Amino acid sequence: MEHELLRKLRSAMAAAGHDALVAFSQDNVTYTAGFLVPSHASNRFRRTITVLAGDTFAAQIVVNVEENLARQRSRFSDIRAYNQFTQDPADVLADTLTDAGVGSGQIAIELDYMPAQDYIRLRERLPQAKFVPCRELYFNSRMVKTDEEIAVLEKVGRLTDLVVGEVLRQVRPGMTEKSVAQIIGNMMLEGGCDGLKCQVGSGVRSGITNCTPTDKAIEKGDVVRVEILGDMKQYRSNVTRTAVVGEPTDEQREIWSVMIGAREACKAMLKPGTAVADLYRCYVAYLRERGIEPTLKFLGHGIGQTIHEEPYITDTRTVVLEPNITCTMEPLYMIPGRMGFHVEDMYRITPTGFDAITGMITPNDELIRIG
Amino acid sequence: MEHELLRKLRSAMAAAGHDALVAFSQDNVTYTAGFLVPSHASNRFRRTITVLAGDTFAAQIVVNVEENLARQRSRFSDIRAYNQFTQDPADVLADTLTDAGVGSGQIAIELDYMPAQDYIRLRERLPQAKFVPCRELYFNSRMVKTDEEIAVLEKVGRLTDLVVGEVLRQVRPGMTEKSVAQIIGNMMLEGGCDGLKCQVGSGVRSGITNCTPTDKAIEKGDVVRVEILGDMKQYRSNVTRTAVVGEPTDEQREIWSVMIGAREACKAMLKPGTAVADLYRCYVAYLRERGIEPTLKFLGHGIGQTIHEEPYITDTRTVVLEPNITCTMEPLYMIPGRMGFHVEDMYRITPTGFDAITGMITPNDELIRIG
Repeated sequence: MEHELLRKLRSAMAAAGHDALVAFSQDNVTYTAGFLVPSHASNRFRRTITVLAGDTFAAQIVVNVEENLARQRSRFSDIRAYNQFTQDPADVLADTLTDAGVGSGQIAIELDYMPAQDYIRLRERLPQAKFVPCRELYFNSRMVKTDEEIAVLEKVGRLTDLVVGEVLRQVRPGMTEKSVAQIIGNMMLEGGCDGLKCQVGSGVRSGITNCTPTDKAIEKGDVVRVEILGDMKQYRSNVTRTAVVGEPTDEQREIWSVMIGAREACKAMLKPGTAVADLYRCYVAYLRERGIEPTLKFLGHGIGQTIHEEPYITDTRTVVLEPNITCTMEPLYMIPGRMGFHVEDMYRITPTGFDAITGMITPNDELIRIG
Repeated sequence: MEHELLRKLRSAMAAAGHDALVAFSQDNVTYTAGFLVPSHASNRFRRTITVLAGDTFAAQIVVNVEENLARQRSRFSDIRAYNQFTQDPADVLADTLTDAGVGSGQIAIELDYMPAQDYIRLRERLPQAKFVPCRELYFNSRMVKTDEEIAVLEKVGRLTDLVVGEVLRQVRPGMTEKSVAQIIGNMMLEGGCDGLKCQVGSGVRSGITNCTPTDKAIEKGDVVRVEILGDMKQYRSNVTRTAVVGEPTDEQREIWSVMIGAREACKAMLKPGTAVADLYRCYVAYLRERGIEPTLKFLGHGIGQTIHEEPYITDTRTVVLEPNITCTMEPLYMIPGRMGFHVEDMYRITPTGFDAITGMITPNDELIRIG
């Protein structure tokens, strides 16, 4: 029988009246094929495309240097390789859709990602076909995770929760942000990650939303913000902690208690049936009532094959929570030029509420003390 | 005065009769704006776009969460931020082109990268405009480096050349591929890189072209192939070395002498006026005359803001070498299921020949001995 995720995609396709579903982006292709073609991440001139059509047709288009690997690792057995220098992958796609018998059908395709040039060529080749977006279809399928996906998210999430605590215990004044990042890198890789990113911001740099680690030394009195984004088998973790070197000031304590209070108020709403827009409104109202204007226009985001995916927790989204949605919540408040506060954890919605994927090993209900 | 690279792009634009030049891809936007917008690398739903028009117009479009950083770090002073949830960046682009007075002009734009959806919207908004590809324009501008670019490439190249030698001296039988990768990671970051990738393949795994490091232990008799790809200030290095644990066999020595012989034959042609197609043909002929069929369909590739860029050294390209082109040459021969051989260095074309950017610190004229 076909893999669970392919059956899920076919049933969404059929429900929407599509004859075919075509993915171009790294995340949607990897989700569909079950493995990442290395060139897909490293070389934007090499297309990797998946095609599902009707009840049974499934093919993957890859650049010829990746053909052997795709034959070994893809969920698809029909692998169509093309020569990067002499063939147009859009022609291979047109031929594939014709072979599948859907050359004049309704084709759901990543219009928000596929290059304009491929779209222009495909319309020339298949003038009878109707091309419609598949963004929402993939968003909605990916949002609700299978047990297999949840197992990986839990593994990488818990490792990240452990590592962020271990590293903050090792930080001493005088260490640079880069050296902290290096410890994080080693521990995440030793723990079984395939890769990671991290942000370390200290002192005024904690007030920069995306703070790439620098040679700045961590000093007494600094707020230190550490965000870790792990990769494991194409699934991601995202955990952030805020610490202070020495004793926090009254101002820092007060701001932090508002951040944590907002998070707890939102946790109480984290269950099936809650609209993400209401969750966001609860967050914003909690902060504003206490004199804090939220820095970001969202409270959190779905997490899976990409760090950010649906549901974004914001009032511009209409998603209602349901079981096995995985997401983060990340109360964040930056005071540019002074300091920043940020706590982020991963959650899974259960039939009756939620499971915290992270936050049990390294809680941050109070500002973590360093030194 | 405008930055040298912007003047270069404007002059290529004018020569081709374009009224505007629009970039969407991470590499072309970063090349143009002089810095990487973090979201550009991490979130495919957030567009980052540069627009040059006429003699003076220059604007950069970024998602609003990146606005402050762009105002600090971009070469462009006209920063136009959009809200990811409520605005269509293609509309912001249409408005920008209209403001620049080129709404009905000839617009060179990344048709091979911009999403089809943005193209469809842009054509609706600017029905009088003519959209043409800018792929070759960017390829050709980026291929020939400025002194500023060469200085960074030399710095990251020499670091990589040093690190690959240091790490191979530390390898002992029993160490895993992943632990070798970890040492490489630490040394590259300590040396000033912002990031890196590396491949470590030992034993039969040396015969896999892209060999992600695993938990396999390195054993006596293994061929060990180490490829390092460094990132420094958005420029890349790419250096590969092949080593043997213990004494190489006669077969290994013979294959290696053919690889190095091919490289030396090609080096003799590495100067202005040589067609890359001829360089590739020389390589292929050298190997075939000695009974070896090259594994890859190219001998090397340009290197700069991306690992792979023009000129690809292959007979499907018409580029003729000129001063300040930077490229790699990478003789590579994989015997799947047995072992693989690969040596890669970086070169800069000079007015009379070439400078080897790498290979002076850690030569690989003979197979490197481990253990």
